[in-house]
Amino acid sequence: MTESPSIRAHYRLRAPAHDVDRLARFIAYEQTVELPEVLITDPSILANIVGRVDSVAPVTEGVFDVCIAYQTPLASNQLGQLLNLVYGNVSMLQGIRLRALELPDSLLRQFSGPRFGISRLRTMLGVHGRPLLATAIKPRGSSLARLAEIAYEFALGGGDIVKDDQNLVDPDFESFKRRVDACAKAVASANAKSGRNCLYFPHLAAPADQIERYADFVLRSGLKGVLLCPIVLGIDSARMLSEQYGLVFMAHPALTGALTQSSEHGIAHDVLLGTLFRLAGADIGVFPATGGRFDYSRETCQSISRALREPLGALESAFPCPAGGMTFQGLKVLADDYGPDSVFLVGGALHGHASSVLQGTREFSARIAELFPEHQHCDPQTDFVSSCEFNPEQGEGVHTLLGFLPGFNWEHRQIRSYKGSGELAFDGVRRVELIGKNGEQADFDLRYFELAKGGFTSLEKHLHTHVIIVTCGAGLIQVGDESFQAKPMDVIYVPPLEVHQISNSADEPFGFFCVVDHERDRPMRP
Amino acid sequence: MTESPSIRAHYRLRAPAHDVDRLARFIAYEQTVELPEVLITDPSILANIVGRVDSVAPVTEGVFDVCIAYQTPLASNQLGQLLNLVYGNVSMLQGIRLRALELPDSLLRQFSGPRFGISRLRTMLGVHGRPLLATAIKPRGSSLARLAEIAYEFALGGGDIVKDDQNLVDPDFESFKRRVDACAKAVASANAKSGRNCLYFPHLAAPADQIERYADFVLRSGLKGVLLCPIVLGIDSARMLSEQYGLVFMAHPALTGALTQSSEHGIAHDVLLGTLFRLAGADIGVFPATGGRFDYSRETCQSISRALREPLGALESAFPCPAGGMTFQGLKVLADDYGPDSVFLVGGALHGHASSVLQGTREFSARIAELFPEHQHCDPQTDFVSSCEFNPEQGEGVHTLLGFLPGFNWEHRQIRSYKGSGELAFDGVRRVELIGKNGEQADFDLRYFELAKGGFTSLEKHLHTHVIIVTCGAGLIQVGDESFQAKPMDVIYVPPLEVHQISNSADEPFGFFCVVDHERDRPMRP
Repeated sequence: MTESPSIRAHYRLRAPAHDVDRLARFIAYEQTVELPEVLITDPSILANIVGRVDSVAPVTEGVFDVCIAYQTPLASNQLGQLLNLVYGNVSMLQGIRLRALELPDSLLRQFSGPRFGISRLRTMLGVHGRPLLATAIKPRGSSLARLAEIAYEFALGGGDIVKDDQNLVDPDFESFKRRVDACAKAVASANAKSGRNCLYFPHLAAPADQIERYADFVLRSGLKGVLLCPIVLGIDSARMLSEQYGLVFMAHPALTGALTQSSEHGIAHDVLLGTLFRLAGADIGVFPATGGRFDYSRETCQSISRALREPLGALESAFPCPAGGMTFQGLKVLADDYGPDSVFLVGGALHGHASSVLQGTREFSARIAELFPEHQHCDPQTDFVSSCEFNPEQGEGVHTLLGFLPGFNWEHRQIRSYKGSGELAFDGVRRVELIGKNGEQADFDLRYFELAKGGFTSLEKHLHTHVIIVTCGAGLIQVGDESFQAKPMDVIYVPPLEVHQISNSADEPFGFFCVVDHERDRPMRP
Repeated sequence: MTESPSIRAHYRLRAPAHDVDRLARFIAYEQTVELPEVLITDPSILANIVGRVDSVAPVTEGVFDVCIAYQTPLASNQLGQLLNLVYGNVSMLQGIRLRALELPDSLLRQFSGPRFGISRLRTMLGVHGRPLLATAIKPRGSSLARLAEIAYEFALGGGDIVKDDQNLVDPDFESFKRRVDACAKAVASANAKSGRNCLYFPHLAAPADQIERYADFVLRSGLKGVLLCPIVLGIDSARMLSEQYGLVFMAHPALTGALTQSSEHGIAHDVLLGTLFRLAGADIGVFPATGGRFDYSRETCQSISRALREPLGALESAFPCPAGGMTFQGLKVLADDYGPDSVFLVGGALHGHASSVLQGTREFSARIAELFPEHQHCDPQTDFVSSCEFNPEQGEGVHTLLGFLPGFNWEHRQIRSYKGSGELAFDGVRRVELIGKNGEQADFDLRYFELAKGGFTSLEKHLHTHVIIVTCGAGLIQVGDESFQAKPMDVIYVPPLEVHQISNSADEPFGFFCVVDHERDRPMRP
């Protein structure tokens, strides 16, 4: 048998002592070849496919811990298949709980995990050294004005993250747009007043064939994150949505209890809400707090919290977010239990605590600040600087003819300086905004770019596409996994969400026109 | 309270008698407004949003049946939200089982349900009056040749449906294509020999951002159906895939046991594997058979079977498909239990029963025929399926690089003839459609035009604008009252409704790129 590191699944079984070995072998076969032992004779299948029972240990009378090793390629580098491999068919037996999961680095490397994680989310917010305060906009049935008011007051009162209640699901796209727009504007207006960067996360829930349109709208609204229910959506669909759209992913536990709440069956809380949700990219994992409405034990909560934050390959850590009936009085215990790297999600208590959500938020914020005296606030870093965008300034007028001038310049148009700042590196780029920023009426903009020797644009991706027409020099163009040399008059199409970068590969300047949609989303990091 | 028909969710609760009313009300509030009762005072929310406890009835000591009515709009016409509404948050309590679900017609009408169902699938196969015989291609790890051979022998031996084992999940798209192609060809070749229409259903499993590409390939391969694992994929993702691509949907129960197998918690088997999978569009619902490896009770199996076939709004009935350790000897019992409108999925027993899969299939088929002497075979109607509603691409394909070729031509793109059709006069124009007509996602199109000596475009106007970049030669451009000579690299903007015409003013060809809005109005006379 190949001795490369395996996926190790730890099950707790209910079985009579005389039968446990047979049951362990049954699982190893069922989850991999789904055929009886006698029918598997091919040595390569026995060596590379069939699971291996690594250990069987008694726990109490009639209860055993069994570890089965599965060869890593059997997960096919997919989150769905990983779940299927370790628990798909045996879920249909009884008294088999998946209590722990060890994943080799070679598999972990296939997943991006949290895109922001604790550190980047803190940078976005400018909040360090204390737990974040979050709330939910509710209840469903309230007027748009009331929902927006809750968001506004929370943001103004010092809250960090305001999310939709997971029951806020709209009957159609137009309703979603109206609601999200109202709440987004409310939070933006509170932020403008406070100078802070409270984030608003809409609940992304729609039929599977429409949900990307919703995500697109969220992104184009300038929002940075979403609330997703991975078990309702499908865990890999949640991963896809947050990853493709570059959104902060707050994971809601709706429906997870169906899989976790039987102590003798199903999947352990920390495996599902911790490890698997983190693999799916959750930046914040919501779970029911001890003492709240669902009253998960302190041990369960701590296990989820650990799984979200502890080292896991090269994956970022995620914020544990206890929720579900948290009170003002309970903040001290939460602070002790979870420490600063956590999110406290307060719903009803905030609404019911004081005279208003504004006042309630102020009191909760003040209490958290008091409990974490070392905390620091600094300027939130909201903006991502990209080489292919610039802030609109005054146009240079609509002209029918932009006459070509020597050295790739045009009448009526200035060359704009083009400097990188912050995280995104780019260099040696000059840009001419030909059409689109001056009042022309078209659905697209036309720009001219020129990369000096050694110049390159930032590595980025976005929903909108590029169409490039090369005019002079020679350049290296990377689009997704492809990379090619481009020469004058080549036309290049950069599809949506493909990571791309353009570099000059010769000594003379590399020039090209670039056409983009006039209404377009902001570039994201790869 | 509005008296329109509601969604009625029936729960079985474990609770002390003195606490059951409080718990029932807790569920009604938690699942809708997620706030304590005291905080909900708005009469419209109380009337239209908060769930209503319809009944509380004791079952045994400390066990109660509770029915809660939810207003139908709360499901937002979405399968995911329906699940969230009836079990999302309360799944995180303990001892609450969703045991039945009554859905009003107004909600049922929002779902297409099984696209083929029992009757259309029979027509496709040409098989009436007996259960269908199905098998799985396995085990993973076998050579492509061996997998294809199993498919071939089963199809030739008289089998009706051959599906991939749900463990057959490929590491990449190329492997999927090779495998599916090999099995599809094997089945087609057996069908050509037998004159029957055995169907091959590949397992559609891939990262969420790639799975539509896989579905597309299945459809283009001429296959009519797929195996989907709704709980692994997300139940609405499964619906979307089968519905969008018009594929027969065979639903696999992988991972469902995590939700169904605790008798005191989770979701009843028939609700999940019957009603909800059928709402998702399952044409065939696979579940573990009594006496097989998972040994679901006869009562459980019959309840699933009923939920798949009994009247449910205007939805088609689906085939129940008992599976998981079925034997030749067991066929009689299956026949008695499920009758003709069912699918018998035989895996290991078929492989192990006789000298070959071919022989095994023949014996199983003969036995089923014997048990259902009234059965009829007729010509399969394979083209009956409107699954080809898929829109074939008219264009020349999306390509990242359109390499420039001598004489102003581009790789992957043809020159289109450009003829006047009466009203609008023009002459000597050739056109290359570079971007926009081939499936690219941009708000604009990029075309290349070239006017021969003496050539000119029609004099016209329209609401949309033109942006022109001259590449070679010299031309006269008229825009409104202006008229000017244009040279290479000049950029020209034609504003809305300005009359314009372009003419070659030299001896050599006059060439230019022209960018226009993708969605645009038709040109008008001057």
